[in-house]
Amino acid sequence: MYHLAERLFPICRSITGNGFRQSLEIIREILPEIVVHEVPSGTKVFDWTVPKEWNIRGGWIRRSSGETIVDFKESNLHVMGYSLPVHKTVSREELLEHVYTIPDQPEWIPYVTSFYKERWGFCMTENQKQTLEDDEYEVLIDSTLSDGSLTYGELVLPGETQEEILFTTYLCHPSMANNELSGPCLQTELVKYIKSLPLRKYTYRFVWNPETIGSITYLSKNIEILQEHLKAGFVLSCVGDNRTYSFVSTKYSDTLADRVLENVLRFHYPDYKHYSFLERGSDERQYGSAGVDLPVCAFCRSLFREYPEYHTSADNMNIISPEGFQGAYEVMVKVINALENNGYYQMLCKCEPQLGRRGLYPTVSMKGVYDAVRTMQHFIAYADGRNDLIGISNIIGTPVDELIPIKDKLMEHQLLTVK
Amino acid sequence: MYHLAERLFPICRSITGNGFRQSLEIIREILPEIVVHEVPSGTKVFDWTVPKEWNIRGGWIRRSSGETIVDFKESNLHVMGYSLPVHKTVSREELLEHVYTIPDQPEWIPYVTSFYKERWGFCMTENQKQTLEDDEYEVLIDSTLSDGSLTYGELVLPGETQEEILFTTYLCHPSMANNELSGPCLQTELVKYIKSLPLRKYTYRFVWNPETIGSITYLSKNIEILQEHLKAGFVLSCVGDNRTYSFVSTKYSDTLADRVLENVLRFHYPDYKHYSFLERGSDERQYGSAGVDLPVCAFCRSLFREYPEYHTSADNMNIISPEGFQGAYEVMVKVINALENNGYYQMLCKCEPQLGRRGLYPTVSMKGVYDAVRTMQHFIAYADGRNDLIGISNIIGTPVDELIPIKDKLMEHQLLTVK
Amino acid sequence: MYHLAERLFPICRSITGNGFRQSLEIIREILPEIVVHEVPSGTKVFDWTVPKEWNIRGGWIRRSSGETIVDFKESNLHVMGYSLPVHKTVSREELLEHVYTIPDQPEWIPYVTSFYKERWGFCMTENQKQTLEDDEYEVLIDSTLSDGSLTYGELVLPGETQEEILFTTYLCHPSMANNELSGPCLQTELVKYIKSLPLRKYTYRFVWNPETIGSITYLSKNIEILQEHLKAGFVLSCVGDNRTYSFVSTKYSDTLADRVLENVLRFHYPDYKHYSFLERGSDERQYGSAGVDLPVCAFCRSLFREYPEYHTSADNMNIISPEGFQGAYEVMVKVINALENNGYYQMLCKCEPQLGRRGLYPTVSMKGVYDAVRTMQHFIAYADGRNDLIGISNIIGTPVDELIPIKDKLMEHQLLTVK
Repeated sequence: MYHLAERLFPICRSITGNGFRQSLEIIREILPEIVVHEVPSGTKVFDWTVPKEWNIRGGWIRRSSGETIVDFKESNLHVMGYSLPVHKTVSREELLEHVYTIPDQPEWIPYVTSFYKERWGFCMTENQKQTLEDDEYEVLIDSTLSDGSLTYGELVLPGETQEEILFTTYLCHPSMANNELSGPCLQTELVKYIKSLPLRKYTYRFVWNPETIGSITYLSKNIEILQEHLKAGFVLSCVGDNRTYSFVSTKYSDTLADRVLENVLRFHYPDYKHYSFLERGSDERQYGSAGVDLPVCAFCRSLFREYPEYHTSADNMNIISPEGFQGAYEVMVKVINALENNGYYQMLCKCEPQLGRRGLYPTVSMKGVYDAVRTMQHFIAYADGRNDLIGISNIIGTPVDELIPIKDKLMEHQLLTVK
Repeated sequence: MYHLAERLFPICRSITGNGFRQSLEIIREILPEIVVHEVPSGTKVFDWTVPKEWNIRGGWIRRSSGETIVDFKESNLHVMGYSLPVHKTVSREELLEHVYTIPDQPEWIPYVTSFYKERWGFCMTENQKQTLEDDEYEVLIDSTLSDGSLTYGELVLPGETQEEILFTTYLCHPSMANNELSGPCLQTELVKYIKSLPLRKYTYRFVWNPETIGSITYLSKNIEILQEHLKAGFVLSCVGDNRTYSFVSTKYSDTLADRVLENVLRFHYPDYKHYSFLERGSDERQYGSAGVDLPVCAFCRSLFREYPEYHTSADNMNIISPEGFQGAYEVMVKVINALENNGYYQMLCKCEPQLGRRGLYPTVSMKGVYDAVRTMQHFIAYADGRNDLIGISNIIGTPVDELIPIKDKLMEHQLLTVK
Repeated sequence: MYHLAERLFPICRSITGNGFRQSLEIIREILPEIVVHEVPSGTKVFDWTVPKEWNIRGGWIRRSSGETIVDFKESNLHVMGYSLPVHKTVSREELLEHVYTIPDQPEWIPYVTSFYKERWGFCMTENQKQTLEDDEYEVLIDSTLSDGSLTYGELVLPGETQEEILFTTYLCHPSMANNELSGPCLQTELVKYIKSLPLRKYTYRFVWNPETIGSITYLSKNIEILQEHLKAGFVLSCVGDNRTYSFVSTKYSDTLADRVLENVLRFHYPDYKHYSFLERGSDERQYGSAGVDLPVCAFCRSLFREYPEYHTSADNMNIISPEGFQGAYEVMVKVINALENNGYYQMLCKCEPQLGRRGLYPTVSMKGVYDAVRTMQHFIAYADGRNDLIGISNIIGTPVDELIPIKDKLMEHQLLTVK
């Protein structure tokens, strides 16, 4: 995952344009079955319109002396996303109206965009801005903003049922690592994991789209099927650093997505951070919006906005790591396994079964001895058809992955069924 | 409000009689549309009977020396409410059987009544009682207790719907200020506020009655209409002092009255005191009684019983103030506005709307900038038809009065409807 | 109760056999109406089979010198429950494979059984085990394990309705006092109490059976009637010591059994210990098992497993006492009274009733006076048909036994009915 992120890092992406397409093609080298969709500029998507396509070849600011101050070639964050083309000479005063910095993080270049108002701009460090003298500056932005299309990738892996699990992430950010190359890279690895499963109860749907407008576009085309079939979904974002684990719950914190993610994190990473929907910030905003109301949480290592490097040039390859990816991957694998094994289990015999004659119980009853089978007995007691596996896990305080072999053993002995 | 209280203060009121009528007429100088009802003594009202009408012209105790010890003219609290007429000479011992004081508040005259057992009595300060020597005392109570009627005032302001909001208060206490001239005075002002509203969704009902027997009488005549139409009601009592804000919730704390009052107080007066129905003490007792079960809270500044001057001669014009009234008035105005604007709102577009093209969103996306529209986005997310405005306010942590302009703006842009 | 326990203490009981029968006959001297059931070995009872019947006449270990080390006559705990007969000479090494002790309670003999695997064994103190030298040991267990039957006692006291309350306890333990002669002895006394009631709303069912297999057997014969009629049940276990009060709630803590027991303990023994179903250990395991799902709690003084003498020779007559029994008896009497008086009460008049004219209210209204009738007023307010008596008790914070006379008085005055 880290290696893929390294390959993708230098590319200048935006919500439309060749940077996005090129990045998606690199992922398709690993997963050629990803279907690429192009949605023309001007298409109505709910309350929105697919914007013009933006492409950029270069951009810089030069002093009257000819010295280049900032150059797109050094960092693609230097040009504000969706900048109009411009080539002129401006006073210091006029230039400053088009310069964006972060005063309290003076060494970092901010990530700024202007998707829905046409203007031009440059981003630089606050320190650099302070050095701008009274001078004439030549500015060049060699961009195009014109009819084109919005691109996204989609991959569906059918399962035994039409019920669906969704993973979605966004590939529209330029050279920032955790936010957001980590999500697309983790998702690519999860596809490989799910393809490796011998049986899949659920159909799995994966989407790589531009954030916000991409999700709105995707939903406008797929809302009926999702509202009918989606059981749980996860926005993958900021999953490459190695600080904490977080999730943003759905609007009412009551969906299968919330339940499974909260269960896995609580047992395995009890220091995780739980954010309410009021802290949402990525595509869970659209999935949870009024009228859409789909069961989609966001899963992060450090939550977007909560780490200092967020949306700056400091969100680079140094703040993500293979270990960070691996941790996020393991959470999602546990989530998938819990979902695949989830169900409303019901014992087939009344009263406790005779575990002893099946070799499941010690035959000498003595103070202390039988604690060893306590978990199995708890599972059996609550496998009364009223609780799913996650519910039983929550009640008896045992992680789902410890309950799966118990469930399998009881089914093997024909003591248990799933409703 | 304070001025009206000053005019009403000297009058000796009781649950029936001319003092009540005279007081109601003074209020009718401001609100002539109040309808005065007279219910004859002996009328059956649920489990009760309207009592005889009591009127009093004077009363005193004199020593054998002719010196007057207490005189009704100085304080109408000196004669126990509903005292039978008496004129005789009694020993100190016999007198003391008819004297009421508050031993631990020795400088204050208590307020005592005997509505349902015929007897006579005087109230005085404990200090004065201690000065009573062995002597013959002439006692006079010039009262009448005979068939007459119970009086109450009622005013109904129709709205767009038959759904009702009730305000009720009681005008049966003699010269005490906070308990209870404050309620009738505040209520009079609220009528003026509601009349000033250009549109009213709700029909508003206002009642000035004697406490307990008056509410029972009122309910016996109006229970069907109230059980059919009443959405929220408020007993106004002890609303003129300037110490705290309080409310007594309904029996299960689950009505619209509880929700709106709790919401307004929590956001605007977070130090308010919340009392359960177990702390009830005024007419909310009848409105919340078994079989009546109407959604009526009591609203107070200092709760009855909880302030030291309660039911004594110290509850005088000094413990209420224009500021005290004003605070209570503002709470009730916020309550009315929240009710009038309440409803189950539903967004008309799926996904988040494009706020930018409607001038509702900053067009430069940059770290920190969009916090400003966060409240609107939260409102939009939870305007999914599942929550009323008060519910949204509680979830997103924003006062209802800040949500009303957002709601209005979204309706204006045809993005929102009310179910 | 203590006296009966003394008589029963010396008998060697097990889950089947003459010790159980003999003990039940001693209880039948007090309650001859107990019906004795015998269920043949080999009978299928849900997932289980009634085991062979075990009887024992004696057992000992002798050194080669002829010295007797342990003898069944001294303590019937010395022979492992359900030991096969054996008579042979063994080396110290072989002997130790059949010896059970408690290393960290070296002065006490453990209680050990092997119901479902045929073997033989002895129990002794850890201290004694340490004295065993290298020697030849003669071991004798004079037992029989052969087809016979499992015995239980049952007594049903019909009430006005078919709705049932169950008390169940187990009589299968050898010479241990708290666990478990206390349960059978308390239950015997409760039968006498219930027979003394002039009227019984409920039908009461009492069962004395062997633990686990006995309950499974009992349920296999009675599950339909219990699932149809049982409203609340209590396993009585470890009720003779004088330390604390405890109960183990049902699987979801939501049954009438939980509600009544929790209510009584909370008001009268606020230091009681509440254990969740995850702490279950006695026959509530079967009653609460998946597919059975009956409303049965366990009631204890010290919970089984939680007191040091549990399942050892130290659980003798010294750790139980008449006072311990009496406390448990009083809890259960309160529980029975609460159940018999429970119901959904509804006031027959609207608004508060006029308590004064019925002599239920002081007639002088004065600050402080009316607190005395507050409880009655609270009862009246919540007697609105939505709450049963236990519910009202929980809401208004008054023990059920203080509400019963209020309820009776209001019914007498025809102010109250039960739905």
